[in-house]
Amino acid sequence: MNDFQFQNTTKVYFGKDQLGHLHEEVLKYGKSVLVVYGGGSIKKIGLYDKVMKELKENNIEVYELAGIEPNPRHTTVNKGAKICKDNHVTSVLGIGGGSTIDASKAIAALTLADTDNIWDLVEKKVAWNNALPVLAMPTIASTGSEMDKSCVIANVEKGVKSGINGDILRPKAAFLDPTNTFSVSAKQTACGGFDIMAHLFDMNYFVNSDKYPLQFNVVQTLLRTVREQLPIAIKEPENYAARATMLWAASWALNSFCTSGYKTQAQLHALEQFSSTYDMTHGLALAIITPKWMTYLLNKDETVVDDFSRFALNVMGVKDNGNTLENAKAGIVALQSFIKDELHLPTSLSEVGINDEKFDELKVKACYGQDALPRAYRSLSQKDCLNIYKMCL
Amino acid sequence: MNDFQFQNTTKVYFGKDQLGHLHEEVLKYGKSVLVVYGGGSIKKIGLYDKVMKELKENNIEVYELAGIEPNPRHTTVNKGAKICKDNHVTSVLGIGGGSTIDASKAIAALTLADTDNIWDLVEKKVAWNNALPVLAMPTIASTGSEMDKSCVIANVEKGVKSGINGDILRPKAAFLDPTNTFSVSAKQTACGGFDIMAHLFDMNYFVNSDKYPLQFNVVQTLLRTVREQLPIAIKEPENYAARATMLWAASWALNSFCTSGYKTQAQLHALEQFSSTYDMTHGLALAIITPKWMTYLLNKDETVVDDFSRFALNVMGVKDNGNTLENAKAGIVALQSFIKDELHLPTSLSEVGINDEKFDELKVKACYGQDALPRAYRSLSQKDCLNIYKMCL
Repeated sequence: MNDFQFQNTTKVYFGKDQLGHLHEEVLKYGKSVLVVYGGGSIKKIGLYDKVMKELKENNIEVYELAGIEPNPRHTTVNKGAKICKDNHVTSVLGIGGGSTIDASKAIAALTLADTDNIWDLVEKKVAWNNALPVLAMPTIASTGSEMDKSCVIANVEKGVKSGINGDILRPKAAFLDPTNTFSVSAKQTACGGFDIMAHLFDMNYFVNSDKYPLQFNVVQTLLRTVREQLPIAIKEPENYAARATMLWAASWALNSFCTSGYKTQAQLHALEQFSSTYDMTHGLALAIITPKWMTYLLNKDETVVDDFSRFALNVMGVKDNGNTLENAKAGIVALQSFIKDELHLPTSLSEVGINDEKFDELKVKACYGQDALPRAYRSLSQKDCLNIYKMCL
Repeated sequence: MNDFQFQNTTKVYFGKDQLGHLHEEVLKYGKSVLVVYGGGSIKKIGLYDKVMKELKENNIEVYELAGIEPNPRHTTVNKGAKICKDNHVTSVLGIGGGSTIDASKAIAALTLADTDNIWDLVEKKVAWNNALPVLAMPTIASTGSEMDKSCVIANVEKGVKSGINGDILRPKAAFLDPTNTFSVSAKQTACGGFDIMAHLFDMNYFVNSDKYPLQFNVVQTLLRTVREQLPIAIKEPENYAARATMLWAASWALNSFCTSGYKTQAQLHALEQFSSTYDMTHGLALAIITPKWMTYLLNKDETVVDDFSRFALNVMGVKDNGNTLENAKAGIVALQSFIKDELHLPTSLSEVGINDEKFDELKVKACYGQDALPRAYRSLSQKDCLNIYKMCL
């Protein structure tokens, strides 16, 4: 069992009536804030007005950066940091999905760095070790960026998604109000929910080392809880308990507790090169890939049977038929029909208009240019990745 | 569902090879430390020497307070604070069980307070809002004081256990090395483990409000994990995985995550007035009381049936016989035999030499002088408490 260190300092304000604490958090660091958001959805649900009222009534100087893209562009980050530098802004508040919060973290770091281009930090051309304080207000249960210390940014010119990370980027405070997620569409709810599951699969449940019983059992419980509550959130978008569960689960899937003790490389997230290449939704690409990845592994490597059988029984609720291989197969079937029939998501690349044209390029990216990912749950070569992509067609 | 706030800033160093980080943590706050410990057990296992070597090799000025009692006396706390005041000590390191870490917190607060008597803080006669930084090194899986913000101190003259709490008391860092718990006796391992379960029962599992599915499922998983791993830790004291699980479970049972959203008053801990009155082990008293409390509630109040049935199936592993009342009863039987046959603990007060002499006094304490605890899982009057005590004889 590996030693580990765990610390997560984010202060979480959870619930319907916590917005009144926002000014306290902003004023801890100064008198101004850059509010970062995406399209108009936070205006449509009235959240924008409430936030502005809360900030302005407390005499906070407010700057704004709207239009953060679903895979946030590095050029947009650069724009945000320029606003902060020009106006000596003292904090950054990201309101929206993971992309918005990730962009806010990148802006926070770039503002105090000795360059105007975030990509210099990503490529380590410019050293950095400081950042403006980040505050986060997620409006979708998905990446868990609100309690996490990393961010992912897209460089469209280079066709690459990459990022920076450091404890200083972890939001000082996060405002998690389930009602802010009520208006998220069924499809985006499903994609966000699957992203949560993929985080748990990738680094915490399908691991390549000794398991800590406590973390392992908790991760399994989180997975099962998401599997049970996500369809409710899709069917009943204003179900407070289901929305609250998804929102809190998103944070816990990525806030370092679940990974404590594990050093497994994320394989599904490595295989998921489609969202940066085709600008498709990350969680959807993961939902297409995951069952195929499991099927491929099960055919290739019998050492996964016990893990996949456990997944079938304890996460998917498959009835034990006494044979672990049969259980494992039934678990994959159950996952596939969960995605199709309960999440109502496409289950192949062709359904979303993607063909094999770029597979040779993507398989290289999936292994980060190496022959394989050596520390993944099971090492897969570039050829294995290509085979999995073909199964996804 | 209640709104809640969650933050836990403690940095955890978990594992066999983390002691080398101790000097970094001490030196963050100054150049000296008061090392607080109990009897000789940390010397017997060699931990004392290792800690002293680590501190002295890094030129840290070391002061010591040995002899912290199992229920730490307020007079001992006063002594510790005097050492810190006299020598301008800059941090406090508690090495031992919950009592030692609790005493360290109290010393840390008293050192910066305007009195020499911790009981002035407990009784709110003297206001306080600051404390020396506390570091914690638990040597038994039990109270979880290492990630928690409160402490309990005994005033033997008054026959009262009470405490203080505040975010400032939460340890800055905690060193959790499962090997430091290898030499804990079977009985103390059992008592510590039951204390963990009681924390989970009391504020997180048997609650009087809407359940958050995520927290509830995780608490249930923690309970089941402890139920499974504790007997292993007792039978195989050097089983690293079992000891690691117990140690980490202790922290999580009390680090605010599990309670987030709940406002239930701890009833088992209220009923447990024996450890302060008779100086018996807290976890043992809880193990005697818990099954009787459940039996009493089940007879008195049918609204507990579903909760107790769920406990039976999901925590104790009882086979569902299709009738929730029968399940509930079977769960209590299973808990009672778990305590007797797997934890090897006494199951009645008479076995530990306690009679009904002080019951009338204890029932008042159990309700904190009120008629009942109104926000407990189920409100119990003083008379109810007396009845439960009688069942414990």
